[in-house]
Amino acid sequence: MEVQTAARALEAAGRSVVHMEIGEPDFPTPQPVLDAARDAIAKGDIYYTSALGIPALREAIARHYREQFHVEVEPERVIVTAGSSAALLLTLALLVNRDDAILLADPGYPCNRHFVRTLEGAPVGIPVGPETNYQLTDDVVGAAWTPNTRGALIASPSNPTGTTVALEEMRRIAESIAARGGALIVDEIYLGLSYAEGPRTALAISDELFVISSFSKYFNMTGWRLGWLVAPEGAVRDIEKLAQNLYISPPTISQRAALACFQPETLSILEARRREFQTRRDFLVPALRELGFQIPVMPSGGLFVYADCSRFGMDSERFCVEALKATGVAFTPGIDFGIHRAADHVRFAYTIAHDKLREGVRRLAAWLTHLG
Amino acid sequence: MEVQTAARALEAAGRSVVHMEIGEPDFPTPQPVLDAARDAIAKGDIYYTSALGIPALREAIARHYREQFHVEVEPERVIVTAGSSAALLLTLALLVNRDDAILLADPGYPCNRHFVRTLEGAPVGIPVGPETNYQLTDDVVGAAWTPNTRGALIASPSNPTGTTVALEEMRRIAESIAARGGALIVDEIYLGLSYAEGPRTALAISDELFVISSFSKYFNMTGWRLGWLVAPEGAVRDIEKLAQNLYISPPTISQRAALACFQPETLSILEARRREFQTRRDFLVPALRELGFQIPVMPSGGLFVYADCSRFGMDSERFCVEALKATGVAFTPGIDFGIHRAADHVRFAYTIAHDKLREGVRRLAAWLTHLG
Repeated sequence: MEVQTAARALEAAGRSVVHMEIGEPDFPTPQPVLDAARDAIAKGDIYYTSALGIPALREAIARHYREQFHVEVEPERVIVTAGSSAALLLTLALLVNRDDAILLADPGYPCNRHFVRTLEGAPVGIPVGPETNYQLTDDVVGAAWTPNTRGALIASPSNPTGTTVALEEMRRIAESIAARGGALIVDEIYLGLSYAEGPRTALAISDELFVISSFSKYFNMTGWRLGWLVAPEGAVRDIEKLAQNLYISPPTISQRAALACFQPETLSILEARRREFQTRRDFLVPALRELGFQIPVMPSGGLFVYADCSRFGMDSERFCVEALKATGVAFTPGIDFGIHRAADHVRFAYTIAHDKLREGVRRLAAWLTHLG
Repeated sequence: MEVQTAARALEAAGRSVVHMEIGEPDFPTPQPVLDAARDAIAKGDIYYTSALGIPALREAIARHYREQFHVEVEPERVIVTAGSSAALLLTLALLVNRDDAILLADPGYPCNRHFVRTLEGAPVGIPVGPETNYQLTDDVVGAAWTPNTRGALIASPSNPTGTTVALEEMRRIAESIAARGGALIVDEIYLGLSYAEGPRTALAISDELFVISSFSKYFNMTGWRLGWLVAPEGAVRDIEKLAQNLYISPPTISQRAALACFQPETLSILEARRREFQTRRDFLVPALRELGFQIPVMPSGGLFVYADCSRFGMDSERFCVEALKATGVAFTPGIDFGIHRAADHVRFAYTIAHDKLREGVRRLAAWLTHLG
């Protein structure tokens, strides 16, 4: 956030900035979704909906799981939410009592620990590195589990690392956690942006997981604030009550617009964009390695590369500041994602067009040559 | 909620139902707001905004306070939120630590105590009745205050009672709470729907209050999920951080649409609707009194009448069920709003057209005559 502010200030002062710090897709909302929103507004029915979301959208999401991921999800278990933020808050509000610990990967998405803390729970950041694909594993979860642990939250693909937990490992984790009477929450908001063949949802493993997703990333609907949660059947009624109290209902226009997300026309737009992100990743990772960044695990999804910058001889916060000053290239220090080896890492986002990515790499190359 | 479900089931079975249970205005979103939303969609800029909302909307809200309420509010203190639900959660998340008590009127809006509980605080419902206009007073707050008390939340006008705290009393409450080092939160989501001359915002008293408002009620934007918070200057930075973590940003289209709320054309539509609500209230309250309901305090704002039904010889839950069965008139039992004398009270909403209100009263009259 601070990098973004500094980058915008620099830009306002007339400097050319290459934005590799921005965590949202650069593509506009697809036209069929915009058209559906306009239709909804023309019809004027913009009252509250059910707290769980409009039935047609819950059914469309369930169908999407069947068609894209070959997994059966009952529409009754799909809860439409005001962004994945609301899905996460509802899940944690249901699960976390005071001082309950939730295990999280460090590095990870920084908001997650704030959600847990807001609910008076204890976020426990577990240091992860390349040896576990920057993800929790069954062994790591088992070693960190204590009598106070209520569950684990795994983002797959992850922000900032872009790495994915293999389904076999996810199954081991889910089974161990279930055996301990805990809960597994899987954040799949970047699942649609997977670059490996046949991405797999954790819902293939068990009906007892909490799986969080979003219309913001793959579907390019950031500002619409719409996401969803797939919950175990036994949790739906309690989540409905929480949602009624804490949110009333998700935004109505966004829900009606999102119905258009699952049309073949929209999906073909989105698949072309996914391939474009993959092309950017395929350019950026080797280019950064060439510059001297270490990226031990190829990111398999999402929008980010998490790179070790320790060989450049400054801590990552200073490295980001100096790079921005010297080159106008903005990217994010590790400290924004945790504390484990944060000073050695930076996150690059590939949420800009290919020619800008090239320009960013070119500027960094010149600066680093000069530095080194 | 259960009454609403039962009423809809009855309707689906072919019965004619008069809906006096619905807590949202029956008017559609004003046309200039719909037009502004369509323009925003056409422009396609539907990315995340600042977590505090777009600057133009924060300025428009500040201007609205100056023009409608003759109170100066710095735009920097206005925080646009995903509905007043988010404004309340952010405020309470900032203020409430575990076991901190928040004083609330009983009867009151039921979600409020759930917010406090979700944050591991202790909601303390204070029984209030006609002797204090169904509101907290300085004396009542003073008597209930303990070392664990963090603050009080006052809804003025209130749901379900429609009563307002006079500005002089609000000032006494604010000063006593400040002297105790506590915080006063004032929920003004129904302030625009005030039927007394010159409604007064609590912001006239002090810059150190937390004032919550909404685009849902007066502005008829329920499903858009947009509200706002005016916070003390010293709290804004912390609330911004919380908002970034818990919500990212309020819905973008809703924010751009809401800019049209403050145009003279929109305000004149809304003022006509406010007068229509007033006319409904002026019909309904005497009509209910005529039927034998006791309404000791004339509601001065909002959409509801809170009526004592004890003379009809059944508890209010049964009364609602029997009335719905016998007459098809739906309204809400007191238990939905607290526990204090809940079995003696029901809430009627005047969110239906005048002829339907008349029909509801006619049906109730026939049934009650038959009963009595």
